[in-house]
Amino acid sequence: MKSIEQNRAEYERLIEVFRAHDIGYFFYNGGNDSMDTALKVSQIGQSLGYPVICVGVPKTVDNDLPHTDCCPGFGSVAKYVAVSTREAGLDVASMARTSTRVFVLEVMGRHAGWIAAATGLAGRKPGEPPHIILFPEIPFEPERFLERVKQCVTDYGYCVIAVSEGAAYPDGRFLAEAGTRDAFGHAQLGGVAPVVADMIRQRHGYKYHWAVADYLQRAARHVASKVDVEQAYAVGKAAVELALEGHNAVMPTIVRKRAKPYRWTIGHVPLAEVANR
Amino acid sequence: MKSIEQNRAEYERLIEVFRAHDIGYFFYNGGNDSMDTALKVSQIGQSLGYPVICVGVPKTVDNDLPHTDCCPGFGSVAKYVAVSTREAGLDVASMARTSTRVFVLEVMGRHAGWIAAATGLAGRKPGEPPHIILFPEIPFEPERFLERVKQCVTDYGYCVIAVSEGAAYPDGRFLAEAGTRDAFGHAQLGGVAPVVADMIRQRHGYKYHWAVADYLQRAARHVASKVDVEQAYAVGKAAVELALEGHNAVMPTIVRKRAKPYRWTIGHVPLAEVANR
Repeated sequence: MKSIEQNRAEYERLIEVFRAHDIGYFFYNGGNDSMDTALKVSQIGQSLGYPVICVGVPKTVDNDLPHTDCCPGFGSVAKYVAVSTREAGLDVASMARTSTRVFVLEVMGRHAGWIAAATGLAGRKPGEPPHIILFPEIPFEPERFLERVKQCVTDYGYCVIAVSEGAAYPDGRFLAEAGTRDAFGHAQLGGVAPVVADMIRQRHGYKYHWAVADYLQRAARHVASKVDVEQAYAVGKAAVELALEGHNAVMPTIVRKRAKPYRWTIGHVPLAEVANR
Repeated sequence: MKSIEQNRAEYERLIEVFRAHDIGYFFYNGGNDSMDTALKVSQIGQSLGYPVICVGVPKTVDNDLPHTDCCPGFGSVAKYVAVSTREAGLDVASMARTSTRVFVLEVMGRHAGWIAAATGLAGRKPGEPPHIILFPEIPFEPERFLERVKQCVTDYGYCVIAVSEGAAYPDGRFLAEAGTRDAFGHAQLGGVAPVVADMIRQRHGYKYHWAVADYLQRAARHVASKVDVEQAYAVGKAAVELALEGHNAVMPTIVRKRAKPYRWTIGHVPLAEVANR
């Protein structure tokens, strides 16, 4: 949402609706933008003399909210992409000698590499997939990348690559946007996986396959992480409890108590320390 | 493999290797082409005076071998695509009013629509995803398709489409091959899902997402069908038993004894009745 100064009318209308329906609590779950919205709603409520208790609830597969150990949604996507990378890796390994040598899996996370990084959980020892992970935070260098692909095929017989949808060139252009255009000037249809796969084909000629998991990864309840589901319910419950205790403009957080074995509890922080940080 | 007449030298070399290593049994698993190869190896063995017992073992996610109730591999892929379609469908349904209205999932099966059809298991009642399935066996009619997409969005608020990688126009061109070319004349990089999604965007302007499951669907052991796994082991075991009993040029089959509840047993047929039929 725009700032209160820029869009006062819209915020005033919101409070008007709250007043008409006697709404005293506002819970909003999501990532950075959503926490920012929750904070603004609490501010406008106070400034218009209609105090509404606003609680943000962390929920983003991108896992990029500060002050919380992790964000509900991420754990399950991490499990999905790790499992998928290992499974597809076994498939490619079994036939690399005579068929597909390169497999590219595109995962979500336009600005945060947490999901891409989670594919790394698939490998237990050196040489196991994924052999290369392309992060949105690390500028993509084609020459270095193509050399590494060749080295993997030489060393291991195949190469499995996980690429974030947000992988970008040093000048900031997304790989997915750097492709060709059709007769009408539309950008090419594909995601980043086919771009990377074709780059490899053009240089090395290896047979390849690619997959774009898209919504499948974030909707895959059948392989959800148990801890992730528990944390999702826990932050929702904590949000209601915080509101009933009168806390305003806060967000429940997941606090890590111990790494191995993983132990966690619930805390909370002011939304002002979270919103669009 | 080519016919024995066309490629006698290669077959003779094969038998030579068999003889040198005292190989008396040849088991070959796969789909139509593999059954054809197994049959040819048994024929050349006999004609060269080195009888080798050849048994084909059915295994193809395409599910297109005749004389068997189904092919090991298919049941698990069917489960994967049905589960994925339902999960992604719930995701789209939850946000269609303000965001993505169209979701396209590309599945395998270049010449057989069994996998595409299996996405239909996701829907329990009318209006539930998938709303449209594009089969390789049914020529694609763009106008009829685009009209149906619009109707779905009007009726249900969103539209989930499953498309076989082998979907083709009435003249036989694959949709995936019908796209644009880059500056070097290379065919576009994408699969069929982005082609279909872009077709919808151009006509209706709906926000869309698309996924290409590729190897993920056939490697997904974490969500394998129990019956499928049992059948895979059963045909392998039966193949060895058939060979030890002296059967040559045969393929074990899965025989359906009852539909509900599903009951099956193992039979067998001559490879000549299976090979490339």
